[in-house]
Amino acid sequence: MSTIIPKPSVPAPDILRCAYMEIVVTDLAASRAFYVDLLGLHVSYEDDQQIYLRSFEEFIHHNLVLTLGPIAAVKAFSYRVRHPEDVDLAEAYYKELGCRTERRKDGFVRGIGDSLRVEDPLGFPYEFFHEVQHVERLHMRYDLYSAGELVRLDHFNQVTPDVPRGRKYLEDLGFRVTEDIKDEEGTTYAAWMHRKGTVHDTALTGGNGPRMHHVAFSTHEKHNIIQICDKMGALRMSDRIERGPGRHGVSNAFYLYILDPDGHRVEIYTQDYYTGDPDNPVITWDVHDNQRRDWWGNPVVPSWYTEASLVLDLDGNPQPVIERTDSSEMAVTIGADGFSFTREGDEDGSYHGQAAKGFKLGNQV
Amino acid sequence: MSTIIPKPSVPAPDILRCAYMEIVVTDLAASRAFYVDLLGLHVSYEDDQQIYLRSFEEFIHHNLVLTLGPIAAVKAFSYRVRHPEDVDLAEAYYKELGCRTERRKDGFVRGIGDSLRVEDPLGFPYEFFHEVQHVERLHMRYDLYSAGELVRLDHFNQVTPDVPRGRKYLEDLGFRVTEDIKDEEGTTYAAWMHRKGTVHDTALTGGNGPRMHHVAFSTHEKHNIIQICDKMGALRMSDRIERGPGRHGVSNAFYLYILDPDGHRVEIYTQDYYTGDPDNPVITWDVHDNQRRDWWGNPVVPSWYTEASLVLDLDGNPQPVIERTDSSEMAVTIGADGFSFTREGDEDGSYHGQAAKGFKLGNQV
Amino acid sequence: MSTIIPKPSVPAPDILRCAYMEIVVTDLAASRAFYVDLLGLHVSYEDDQQIYLRSFEEFIHHNLVLTLGPIAAVKAFSYRVRHPEDVDLAEAYYKELGCRTERRKDGFVRGIGDSLRVEDPLGFPYEFFHEVQHVERLHMRYDLYSAGELVRLDHFNQVTPDVPRGRKYLEDLGFRVTEDIKDEEGTTYAAWMHRKGTVHDTALTGGNGPRMHHVAFSTHEKHNIIQICDKMGALRMSDRIERGPGRHGVSNAFYLYILDPDGHRVEIYTQDYYTGDPDNPVITWDVHDNQRRDWWGNPVVPSWYTEASLVLDLDGNPQPVIERTDSSEMAVTIGADGFSFTREGDEDGSYHGQAAKGFKLGNQV
Amino acid sequence: MSTIIPKPSVPAPDILRCAYMEIVVTDLAASRAFYVDLLGLHVSYEDDQQIYLRSFEEFIHHNLVLTLGPIAAVKAFSYRVRHPEDVDLAEAYYKELGCRTERRKDGFVRGIGDSLRVEDPLGFPYEFFHEVQHVERLHMRYDLYSAGELVRLDHFNQVTPDVPRGRKYLEDLGFRVTEDIKDEEGTTYAAWMHRKGTVHDTALTGGNGPRMHHVAFSTHEKHNIIQICDKMGALRMSDRIERGPGRHGVSNAFYLYILDPDGHRVEIYTQDYYTGDPDNPVITWDVHDNQRRDWWGNPVVPSWYTEASLVLDLDGNPQPVIERTDSSEMAVTIGADGFSFTREGDEDGSYHGQAAKGFKLGNQV
Repeated sequence: MSTIIPKPSVPAPDILRCAYMEIVVTDLAASRAFYVDLLGLHVSYEDDQQIYLRSFEEFIHHNLVLTLGPIAAVKAFSYRVRHPEDVDLAEAYYKELGCRTERRKDGFVRGIGDSLRVEDPLGFPYEFFHEVQHVERLHMRYDLYSAGELVRLDHFNQVTPDVPRGRKYLEDLGFRVTEDIKDEEGTTYAAWMHRKGTVHDTALTGGNGPRMHHVAFSTHEKHNIIQICDKMGALRMSDRIERGPGRHGVSNAFYLYILDPDGHRVEIYTQDYYTGDPDNPVITWDVHDNQRRDWWGNPVVPSWYTEASLVLDLDGNPQPVIERTDSSEMAVTIGADGFSFTREGDEDGSYHGQAAKGFKLGNQV
Repeated sequence: MSTIIPKPSVPAPDILRCAYMEIVVTDLAASRAFYVDLLGLHVSYEDDQQIYLRSFEEFIHHNLVLTLGPIAAVKAFSYRVRHPEDVDLAEAYYKELGCRTERRKDGFVRGIGDSLRVEDPLGFPYEFFHEVQHVERLHMRYDLYSAGELVRLDHFNQVTPDVPRGRKYLEDLGFRVTEDIKDEEGTTYAAWMHRKGTVHDTALTGGNGPRMHHVAFSTHEKHNIIQICDKMGALRMSDRIERGPGRHGVSNAFYLYILDPDGHRVEIYTQDYYTGDPDNPVITWDVHDNQRRDWWGNPVVPSWYTEASLVLDLDGNPQPVIERTDSSEMAVTIGADGFSFTREGDEDGSYHGQAAKGFKLGNQV
Repeated sequence: MSTIIPKPSVPAPDILRCAYMEIVVTDLAASRAFYVDLLGLHVSYEDDQQIYLRSFEEFIHHNLVLTLGPIAAVKAFSYRVRHPEDVDLAEAYYKELGCRTERRKDGFVRGIGDSLRVEDPLGFPYEFFHEVQHVERLHMRYDLYSAGELVRLDHFNQVTPDVPRGRKYLEDLGFRVTEDIKDEEGTTYAAWMHRKGTVHDTALTGGNGPRMHHVAFSTHEKHNIIQICDKMGALRMSDRIERGPGRHGVSNAFYLYILDPDGHRVEIYTQDYYTGDPDNPVITWDVHDNQRRDWWGNPVVPSWYTEASLVLDLDGNPQPVIERTDSSEMAVTIGADGFSFTREGDEDGSYHGQAAKGFKLGNQV
Repeated sequence: MSTIIPKPSVPAPDILRCAYMEIVVTDLAASRAFYVDLLGLHVSYEDDQQIYLRSFEEFIHHNLVLTLGPIAAVKAFSYRVRHPEDVDLAEAYYKELGCRTERRKDGFVRGIGDSLRVEDPLGFPYEFFHEVQHVERLHMRYDLYSAGELVRLDHFNQVTPDVPRGRKYLEDLGFRVTEDIKDEEGTTYAAWMHRKGTVHDTALTGGNGPRMHHVAFSTHEKHNIIQICDKMGALRMSDRIERGPGRHGVSNAFYLYILDPDGHRVEIYTQDYYTGDPDNPVITWDVHDNQRRDWWGNPVVPSWYTEASLVLDLDGNPQPVIERTDSSEMAVTIGADGFSFTREGDEDGSYHGQAAKGFKLGNQV
């Protein structure tokens, strides 16, 4: 569908990890209620235009910036690089790619120094920085530890029409794929890739894009995620629980997806596995495997496939959304044209003489 | 619809707790794989016709009897009574009710002494006993403790067409209601009632009956239940996870429903609350409250409403199933004629300007 | 050592459960910091003389009353009885025992109606009541749920010189023993007894008494208890962690002992087992079994054996403390004269050729 | 005391992570009972001379090799390097250091290819390899998941007399320090250092050495560690629980130390924090801070300070143990000459008028 993104001749910057996301929200008080009062993220700085938040174990200034604005969207997917000079490398790299870039020695947001923002080849606003203000690492401040405490930023997830194209670009940039979802005809539906030795720092989900699918924070244990659900129930916000909790097939993590007041999707995530060896085995899932996205076979709600947040260009305007032309994962797995299996090759789906239940969703009204 | 069941003039037996269920299974090896290999219940006795199982903390001979037979059904809902003489009281009680009864001094199954079985006014095969063989209580045998260990039998759940009729009968028998589900017109959809100081020893679910809805075992912690899901995923049995895991509204317990090879439904359950005071506050839930059955608003699959196990009469023949004539909970809450709310009185369902998501199920294909 | 306490001819009151403890504290603000800010108990009422606290799942007015006073001590061990008339029964019962009693129709503390307080035969201030103000049960208020949430009052623990004498008195009163600690010569060191179907509502610990050993609250899961330790570490209060966390031998519960600002001992406790059957097997532990008080063999600190809170008579004066004349558990198990075993009959204590480690404490400086 | 170890002029190998330890055990069946039956490590290969074990989430051939031999000792601390050529780099590096080295193209143990073993400047048998046989990663095999499952090898811990000397050597080799313990006079008692982005791949503990202090495996959650204690209690092995469970000050991890049949110490460990950024803040603990090694102030047993395993040279002979000449952590913190504080500057140690408890251990017999 689109041209291959060439690998630049200059070296890629040495990316450490996904570091923070800047999102535009339309009601700062409502977002504060969500991220601070409900989720318990810790405020590093706030005024009437922005709130800077960090997780329990973080020592850099923030993992999330909420910026007040007219259109709910994502302003930056920001990565930390190993050395100050990696920002220079990033600048040269994206310039060779022909991307629009902007460099600010004092950073685009508080707490961050010399930074590069780019409109990347997939249309996403990527940022690279090394200099950052250190703040108190709260990791032993158990007097501040809530029952659903978010302890780290774990990853980003991006929606893009052509996953293989995006994957090649990110592999060139130094990311390593850990898992993906394909079908027997070779179509790729999603891919997970990392820098920091977990399953991912970012993932590509096939769909109309560029859009932001979710940003994920991790907890220490599974009960912390259950508490977030319980608290949302108590606050009568259960309709903002979109999907889960459950166990992912891909990544093996325990997960939950919830929606903020602007509809930005947040994943709460725990207990994936170490991937830091260069020959870490890549796991490819069959798109028809009904346990790939939920190991327990619980249905993926359609909104999870179709909804996502706009992303902004460097002028702050929403990037146009380009339609995916490859098959959609939703279409090939549920509904009239799709199918899923629990046991591959299990022809009649029968289980000890019981009639097949088929796909669970089919049993619902 | 049916006549009120009168309260006998003789005293009711003093029931301690639900003690065990005897179920007929059609493939003993398949059932053993499910209850022993998957769920880790402990075998007290087995031969080629029956398997006797108990939970980790139990000291009486068994909590579940699997009996090989031609038709999957329930043979007995068995309660332990406080004193040997309570079996006599039970016999007199049911005789006055005009029920068919059968008394066996040596018990109907191994490990149990003097017992009474009855065809109760609702059509269920109830058993009452006091004498029982003690076996090793495994509660400190952590060398046998599996990651998804079932530690107690918690409760039964029975489907009956007329819940208020059944409730009155069980209250006369000494059960106390802890929670129920009603609508604004006074229809009762379900009621939970106990003897042992938890939310229930049995519950009545409105529907075509008499049928057995589920039998429930409890775990120590929530992660034990998650492990059962994970293990079913690993064994490619995710299509036998029917509903959950989730947090109940009613009972406040963390739950999971799974299906055995014959389709008998088993609940795994943990962390309800103390109800032993006589003035324990009864909680009545609005049938339209979308958090009543799942505190997180996750949908109840239709099979959970419609499927249940047959129960047998004292000759071993299935009891005829009588249709419910009151409104069905499924019909009034989902689909074309039903509605559910997340926030009562939340007219447009909007949330911070986001369009209402409505009932989550409606978003599914 | 002392005379046997006779069983009264009148029936004992029907006790439901331990309901609350009233303790005298010498610095109300310091106690509030401990019970409210640290432990997260919920305030039902407070003024400058008293604070009324309840646990997460409680529906009666309180489980703990902190009363400002000059001497740190316990003012009442209060039990709820099944019916209003049980207070009359209690009054007659203790009058026949020759105990000093005081009846107040409006209660001794807020939230409680008609009550009887007695100086019981062991010298403890016991209270019996039925009437009580209901308050909001917070059991689903997960918006208020802290990471170390205390969900129920579980039990009291009393120090008395002559355990068999006290045990007989409490059995006459309707308590049932679940576990005890003895030696081969028949000396009883402690006994646990219940009304509500758990391992205990109160326990007798052999020692100089009458004194209050501890009051115990339960959590849902083990990690909740660990969080309390972590929080005490963060607040640099680790010297108020007296013992644990650990797994009890007796009761099989996971436990922690901490000390409030006045030195009143509080246990945090979770996951004992059901004991409601009348033939619940009693477990007798050998006093020399090194796993009886900590299943992992971790040492009991001497202060845990020797320190306890004074109790008050009905005039508010401390009851004189009478010395235990039977052997002390500390003396027979640790130090020069005592011994403990990990494996009974394990003569040389060797383990796969490794020299015996003996009692762990012996390895400490 | 000893000469500084110079930094070689050749580049250090790029170490990925600690990968496995080879230990000599004197009774293979007894060790199998410990590591397989008790701890549940998974067997990759075994014969009558060796057992190869791996953790739940591992994909390389093994994390632990048990080799039958006459003297319990450690044969290799083995690190995986990023590229095959890093083994060449390691060889050149240690040759320049003047160390004895041995290279085997087919590895020293099964499953591992081209390897270098060295007698390093501190006297430890270090190994470096890249080539390794992949085996089934069991990370989703929840049918094999035990209640106390060990999911990863986390780190080694080495005893050496001169910690600063060893630290410099390891920093030259590419390790980065995350935490250390010092006193006001500048003595270093221990240091933690990593390659893989956790608190450590190895640590240096000041003491008579070279000896192996422990090897650590991690679990997913804290309850998994508690289960291991509970199981050891059930197996009457509580005297092999040496220390814990507890929360470390250093590393913030939840921990347990147990002893294998030969006295090799194993740590079970969970939930430290991300350290992968180059400017990750180093935490220095005061040796007198009583929460440094146990955040809850629980005492460190003396055996934990004094006992450790011998290490072997390349001929299989035990390395001579050299005495530490710097102050010992045990001596400066407990006993007649030592002191510890809970609150720095808390002169009299009083707490709300309660007399100081002082160091908890002092209260023990």
